[in-house]
Amino acid sequence: MSSDIPSFPTSLGTSEGTTITLLGRDLAHELMGEVSFGELAYWLITLERPTPQQSRLFEAVLLGLADHGFTPTAIAARLTWLSAPDAIQGALAAGLLGGGSRYLGVTEDTGRFLAEVLAAAPAPLPAPDDQAGWDALATRAVTERHAAGRFVPGLGHPVHKQGDPRTPRLIGIAREEGLYGPHLALFEAIGRVHAKVLGKQLPLNGAGVSGAALADLGLPLELLRGVVLLARCAGLLGHIAEEIRRPVAGDIYQAVDRNAVYVPPDA
Amino acid sequence: MSSDIPSFPTSLGTSEGTTITLLGRDLAHELMGEVSFGELAYWLITLERPTPQQSRLFEAVLLGLADHGFTPTAIAARLTWLSAPDAIQGALAAGLLGGGSRYLGVTEDTGRFLAEVLAAAPAPLPAPDDQAGWDALATRAVTERHAAGRFVPGLGHPVHKQGDPRTPRLIGIAREEGLYGPHLALFEAIGRVHAKVLGKQLPLNGAGVSGAALADLGLPLELLRGVVLLARCAGLLGHIAEEIRRPVAGDIYQAVDRNAVYVPPDA
Amino acid sequence: MSSDIPSFPTSLGTSEGTTITLLGRDLAHELMGEVSFGELAYWLITLERPTPQQSRLFEAVLLGLADHGFTPTAIAARLTWLSAPDAIQGALAAGLLGGGSRYLGVTEDTGRFLAEVLAAAPAPLPAPDDQAGWDALATRAVTERHAAGRFVPGLGHPVHKQGDPRTPRLIGIAREEGLYGPHLALFEAIGRVHAKVLGKQLPLNGAGVSGAALADLGLPLELLRGVVLLARCAGLLGHIAEEIRRPVAGDIYQAVDRNAVYVPPDA
Amino acid sequence: MSSDIPSFPTSLGTSEGTTITLLGRDLAHELMGEVSFGELAYWLITLERPTPQQSRLFEAVLLGLADHGFTPTAIAARLTWLSAPDAIQGALAAGLLGGGSRYLGVTEDTGRFLAEVLAAAPAPLPAPDDQAGWDALATRAVTERHAAGRFVPGLGHPVHKQGDPRTPRLIGIAREEGLYGPHLALFEAIGRVHAKVLGKQLPLNGAGVSGAALADLGLPLELLRGVVLLARCAGLLGHIAEEIRRPVAGDIYQAVDRNAVYVPPDA
Repeated sequence: MSSDIPSFPTSLGTSEGTTITLLGRDLAHELMGEVSFGELAYWLITLERPTPQQSRLFEAVLLGLADHGFTPTAIAARLTWLSAPDAIQGALAAGLLGGGSRYLGVTEDTGRFLAEVLAAAPAPLPAPDDQAGWDALATRAVTERHAAGRFVPGLGHPVHKQGDPRTPRLIGIAREEGLYGPHLALFEAIGRVHAKVLGKQLPLNGAGVSGAALADLGLPLELLRGVVLLARCAGLLGHIAEEIRRPVAGDIYQAVDRNAVYVPPDA
Repeated sequence: MSSDIPSFPTSLGTSEGTTITLLGRDLAHELMGEVSFGELAYWLITLERPTPQQSRLFEAVLLGLADHGFTPTAIAARLTWLSAPDAIQGALAAGLLGGGSRYLGVTEDTGRFLAEVLAAAPAPLPAPDDQAGWDALATRAVTERHAAGRFVPGLGHPVHKQGDPRTPRLIGIAREEGLYGPHLALFEAIGRVHAKVLGKQLPLNGAGVSGAALADLGLPLELLRGVVLLARCAGLLGHIAEEIRRPVAGDIYQAVDRNAVYVPPDA
Repeated sequence: MSSDIPSFPTSLGTSEGTTITLLGRDLAHELMGEVSFGELAYWLITLERPTPQQSRLFEAVLLGLADHGFTPTAIAARLTWLSAPDAIQGALAAGLLGGGSRYLGVTEDTGRFLAEVLAAAPAPLPAPDDQAGWDALATRAVTERHAAGRFVPGLGHPVHKQGDPRTPRLIGIAREEGLYGPHLALFEAIGRVHAKVLGKQLPLNGAGVSGAALADLGLPLELLRGVVLLARCAGLLGHIAEEIRRPVAGDIYQAVDRNAVYVPPDA
Repeated sequence: MSSDIPSFPTSLGTSEGTTITLLGRDLAHELMGEVSFGELAYWLITLERPTPQQSRLFEAVLLGLADHGFTPTAIAARLTWLSAPDAIQGALAAGLLGGGSRYLGVTEDTGRFLAEVLAAAPAPLPAPDDQAGWDALATRAVTERHAAGRFVPGLGHPVHKQGDPRTPRLIGIAREEGLYGPHLALFEAIGRVHAKVLGKQLPLNGAGVSGAALADLGLPLELLRGVVLLARCAGLLGHIAEEIRRPVAGDIYQAVDRNAVYVPPDA
C-alpha cells in the first residue's frame, strides 16, 4: 500500500521542541531583532549573509521598485480586493501575477543580457576605470542585439525621458559601498554608446539598473524577477491599505462599465 | 461615446519628468539608501514613518514569520515552479494563496480578538504592570470565547508544545523598545490564565504574539494577514531559490504519484 | 533517511501503459466524444454521472454565470494579461481570484442559506405545490434573518431591478426537467413574501437562483462557488481572447493613471 | 480634476433592465438550456458559434485534458485548500498557475510548431490523403528542429510509451466529424517519420494531438493554453471536492515534513 520516499533536504527553516533554526541560526535570538528584513530576504535567496554594504545596495533596489502609482498590477490588486475583500491573499496574488515580461521583467532581462555579454566577452574584462574598453564592449553588444532585431533591455522610459532619477542614485550607492562591478560598468557604457548605434538617445531606466546592481551583487539571475516581486509586494500592500482607507476600485470599475460599448460579434 | 470619470487619489507613488515621489518624499534621494525595506513597508501600509523602535519590532515580526520549512504553502510554490518554471510570479502567488484561515490567519485572528476584547473592556484599561487587572480581563475573555464554542486564537502549537521561542523574544523586544502595549499585556495574561478555564496548558504561539505586537504598533487589523504574506514572500523566494539549486518538487510529486491508490468511484 | 508514507486514494484519473481511466471509465472510448464537458465537470465534482436532465440544468447554470461584461474580475484579468502576456495562466488566475464574498459568493451564500432553513424546518417539508406552506416557511426565515441584521442572499440586483431574466428561465428549465426541488420552492417563496418583511420589493437574482438550482441538484454546498468559478473561467478566456483581438486594458490603465491625483500622505 | 476617457468596446456580455445579451444573443432564452457549456466556451473564445461537429471535437479535447490524477498542479491545489479552505478560488488559482511551459504548455507548443511549419511550407500543401507528401514535409520539419537542438513538441510520454490512447481517439473523432485538417495530418506524419531522424520511436501524446486538433478547429494559437486551463479547471474542482470528501493533503504535507533533512547552509 505504500513505498519508501526519499528525504527532502533544505537549508532554510527547521523546528524542534523549543528552538527554531533558520539559515543555520537560532531564529529567536540570532535573527529576530538583529537582522533587517531585507537582509534576511537576501540571505534566504543566496544562503549567504550579506555584508552591511550589500544589504544597503539590495534594500535600495527594493525601495526603487516597490511602487509606481496606479500601475496595471496595482489596479488589478485593488479590483480583486473590491470583489473578494475576505481574501487579501488573493488581491496580493493578483497584483503579483502581472509580474511578467512586459513591465516587471525588465530587471531580469537586463541582468541576463549583461551577464551573457560578459560571459561571451574575451578575457580579461576591461578594468573598472577603462571607459574606452567598456564602451567598445557595449558598442559590440548593442550592435549585435540591434542587428538581431531585439530591444536592448533597460533602455527607455515612458515618463523619465530625460533620465530616471533612480539610475544615478543606485550607481552612486554601489560606488560608495565598493560594489560597482562589471554589470554596472557595462550598463553605464551602454548608456554612453547606444545612441550612436540606435540613432536616438534613451535613458537608462531604474528597472534596468536594478538588474545590473543585483547581478553585480551575485544574486542568481533566475531570481531577479523574484526580487522585483518582493519589492512590489510591499507596494501592493500599500495600495490595498489605501483602498481600504479611501476606495477607488469601485469608481474604476464604474468608469469602465459606464463607458463600455457593445459591438455585435459579427460587426 | 465617453463620459467623465472621477479622479483617483493616492498618497503612494507618483512620477514626473525627472523625479519620483513616494510617500511624499523624493524616492531617489530621501528613501533609497536611507530607509530599510521593512521600514518602507510599514510606511506604505500606515502612511506614517516608523521610528527606529517601531521598525525594529516590525522587522522582528517579519523575521519570525518568514519561513517554517516545508509548509503546505512552500510545497505548493515548489510544485508550481516545477510545472511552470517560466513564470516565477505564479509559483510565488501559489504559495501566498495558502495564506488563509488555517495557518497564516492566526496572526490576524489574534490581533482582532485582542482588539475586540480591549474595545469592549470597561475604561480605563488596567495599568501596564497591573497583572491582576489583566488576568481578570483575560479570564473573562477566555471564558466567554470558550462558552461560545470557539478557539482562543494564538494558543497552541503542533511542535512547540513547551513554548514557542519567538514569543518571549518578541515580548522582550517590545519591552526594550517601549512598545509593550495593551494587546501584548492581554495576550500574556491569556497565557497565564487560560489553563484554569480550558483545563489544559497551551503555549502562546509565535503567530499569535505577532498579531498582538502588530496591533500594539497600531497597524490596521485588516492588514495583519497582509504583513504575514509579506514575510512569507521572502521565505517563498528562499524555497524557490533552493528548488532551483537542489530540486525536491519532482521527488515530492513522484512520492505522491507512486503511492496513489485508485478507488473506483462507486466503491 | 526516509520513512514510509501512507497511500493516497483517488477516484478521479489514473493511467497505465495504454489506458487512461477517469471516474472508473475508459477515458478515450467511454468519455471522449461521448460525454459533454459540462457533464464531466458535474461528474468530477459529485462522482455521479448526471442524467441528461441534470446535465441540462447544470449547463444552463454555467451559461448564466459565465460572463457579465466588464466586471472587476474581467478587468483584473485583462490588466494582468497586459502586464504579463507570456503567462495566460496568471491572467486567468487573477480573474478568478476576485471570486470572493462580494460578487461571486452570492450563489454559494444562497445555496447555504436555503439549505440551513430547510434543515431547520419541521418535517415534513411542504408539498411542492403547497404555496402557502412554502410562504409560511419563507416568511419565518426572512424575518429571522432580517432580525439578525443580515442580508437575505439572492435578493436584489443593481441593473435588473425589475427582474433578472435568468431567474424565471432557470426555474422553468428545472420544472421541465423534473428537477424543481425544495431549494427552488423556498427561493420562489422568498421572492413572494420578502417585501412584507423588508418593506421593499427586490428581484430574485440570477446568482441566487443558480445556488438554489445547484442545491436542488445535490451538489455539495462547499463547491457551489467552485461551479461559479468554472463558469467564469470560460468568460475570462473570452475576455482574454477579446483583449488580444481588440485591446482595451492599456486604455483602462491610462484612464486611471491620467486621472490620478496625488494627495500628500499627511494631508 | 478629471478628463475624458475612451469607450471600451466588447462583444461578450452586456445587460439592460430586463435583458442580458451574451455574444449577441438573448442569454436567458437563446443560450441557457439550448447551448452546452463547451459550446459556449468555444463561442466566447472565437466569437463564432461552433457547429455540432466542432463542438464534439472541442469537448473531446477538453475531456482528454481535464485530469491526470495527482499531477503537481492537483497536489498544489489540494495543499492550498488545506491551508486556506475559506477561499476555494485561491486553491483553484494555485492549481491553474502550474499551467506553464513544462506540462500544460505542450498543447500550445505543438499547435504553434505545426502552424509555423505549415506557414513556411511551399504552397500548395499536400492533399489530405497524400501521405508521402506529408511525410516529406514532416521529415524536413523534424530534421530542422532537431538540428537546432530543440525538442519536437507532442512527442513522448512518461507512462504511455507504447501509445497514448487519446491520440488515435481524437484523430478518429476529427475524421468522423470532417474536421481532420493539415495540422493533424502533419502531426500524424511526424509520428510516422520522426524515428528515422531522432533514432528512437516515441508516441504522439494526447497533449500534442489536442494542440493539432484545436489548431485545425481554427482556435487562436495564443489561446490554446487557455483551453487546457479550462479543461483543467474541471479536474481541479474534482480534486478539491475529493479533498473535502476524503482528505489527503495533510498526509502529503506530513510525508514531506517528516522526511525533511536539515542541511546547514554552508555544508
